[in-house]
Amino acid sequence: MRIQTLTIVGVGLIGGSIALAAKRRGLAGRVVGAGKNQAELERALAVGAIDECSMDCAGAVGRAEVAVFCMPVDQIADQVLVAANGCSPKTLLTDTGSTKSVIVKQVEAGLPDGITFVGGHPLAGSEKRGVDYADADLLAGRVTIVTRTPRTAPSALERAIQFWEALGSRTRVMDPEEHDRTLALTSHLPHLVASALAGILPRELQELTATGFRDTTRIAAGDPSLWSAVFRQNQPEILLSLQLFERRLKKFRAALTGEEGEALDALLKDGKEARDALGS
Amino acid sequence: MRIQTLTIVGVGLIGGSIALAAKRRGLAGRVVGAGKNQAELERALAVGAIDECSMDCAGAVGRAEVAVFCMPVDQIADQVLVAANGCSPKTLLTDTGSTKSVIVKQVEAGLPDGITFVGGHPLAGSEKRGVDYADADLLAGRVTIVTRTPRTAPSALERAIQFWEALGSRTRVMDPEEHDRTLALTSHLPHLVASALAGILPRELQELTATGFRDTTRIAAGDPSLWSAVFRQNQPEILLSLQLFERRLKKFRAALTGEEGEALDALLKDGKEARDALGS
Repeated sequence: MRIQTLTIVGVGLIGGSIALAAKRRGLAGRVVGAGKNQAELERALAVGAIDECSMDCAGAVGRAEVAVFCMPVDQIADQVLVAANGCSPKTLLTDTGSTKSVIVKQVEAGLPDGITFVGGHPLAGSEKRGVDYADADLLAGRVTIVTRTPRTAPSALERAIQFWEALGSRTRVMDPEEHDRTLALTSHLPHLVASALAGILPRELQELTATGFRDTTRIAAGDPSLWSAVFRQNQPEILLSLQLFERRLKKFRAALTGEEGEALDALLKDGKEARDALGS
Repeated sequence: MRIQTLTIVGVGLIGGSIALAAKRRGLAGRVVGAGKNQAELERALAVGAIDECSMDCAGAVGRAEVAVFCMPVDQIADQVLVAANGCSPKTLLTDTGSTKSVIVKQVEAGLPDGITFVGGHPLAGSEKRGVDYADADLLAGRVTIVTRTPRTAPSALERAIQFWEALGSRTRVMDPEEHDRTLALTSHLPHLVASALAGILPRELQELTATGFRDTTRIAAGDPSLWSAVFRQNQPEILLSLQLFERRLKKFRAALTGEEGEALDALLKDGKEARDALGS
């Protein structure tokens, strides 16, 4: 795949990493950064993530072959729909939101005929924010989930797959609901759990934590407003995952309270086997 | 502090790291590794963690000025008591167990007059096992908790503090119960939570996890038998910590279900502030 103009709307950690990867891999002739935050755009220019910046999102999207929306999940659909009005069918619209059902539904309900949006979600990130932490290799070898709905044109899906793979990621196609069910368990619940654990640590015990506590709670440092928007959009699935997790805690409680030690060993072995399978 | 002979009983990751630190820092003229596992002792010799090895624990402990017991928590008290019979008052006995109440109580109940045991717990470790992962800097800058009971002689406590500080750690003195209450929250509960989270991940979703899930569950890879012994020894305090955590999850559930978004934001902010305070 080779495109003339790639527009990234929102050039923070993820948008910046996509921009850097597109340049490094020779995917795009020109990378345009668009958004409302002038300081962020200037910083993205300064670190060389983008070639040009624009505060006219719709204009910058209209002249791109591919435009990627990288912003908090509760802003994506509106931004896509505003920009879509100035687009021709040649522009593929995609995004990086951590939720998909609400976004894809809202976008598809308002999209002009002939304009294509294919939801995307690269499973890569950091608790850090900003283009200064952008990394051309952030997506390398990681999975990007690409969404398909009854309205998704096969040719648009194919272009989206090519785009995300050209950035170095592997792709998995899912419907938005399967995405949200999956991510509730693999990402949103872990964030909730990390935050809950960090939140009950009394201040006076902070210096008595070691790497175990720090690893387990690392993602709790993520931006609360970004995550609260994710939690709200994926609320039903997160509640189901939380229920599954609470049931597991009940099993631990029963094993701790019970007489037979085997139950506790078996639970810990299950956890170890699952974790070992993930690698480091 | 400068000692002629330091004996490490159990030369795995922690014991090996203490041995390496003692050599690197010139704390001990001679480091003896003792234990029942010949292969482990030979490996410790091969990597240069110890100068000499012995399968006669009591003998090796008897000729040391300081002996450190580094083994699963359910074996420490027995090993200390066996070795203590051949000791003179010149030998300070200490350990690295992740629990303290049960160990200190059992040891103090059986210790011959004049022999001193001061419980120790360096807050450093890894989900890895074995002397191959030992690191002379593992304790550097970390806290070692040193226990004091009504039976602890002030001079023995002072020597234990000097010893653990000579290895590069800072020390905090606590009674064994305060140690166990603290560690239930800062270490044992995080392990339980990480294990529970890893344990509910369906196999087919493994490749859809990113760094968030991996960080949050990393410690679940720890050895189940070591951790199940810790859980059993500190059961009452772990149940109380678990209750605190489950209450926090209930607050998240209520905030997710409720109408006002502020509750969710506030919980996530609490978690971020607590995590930010810990550093990286």
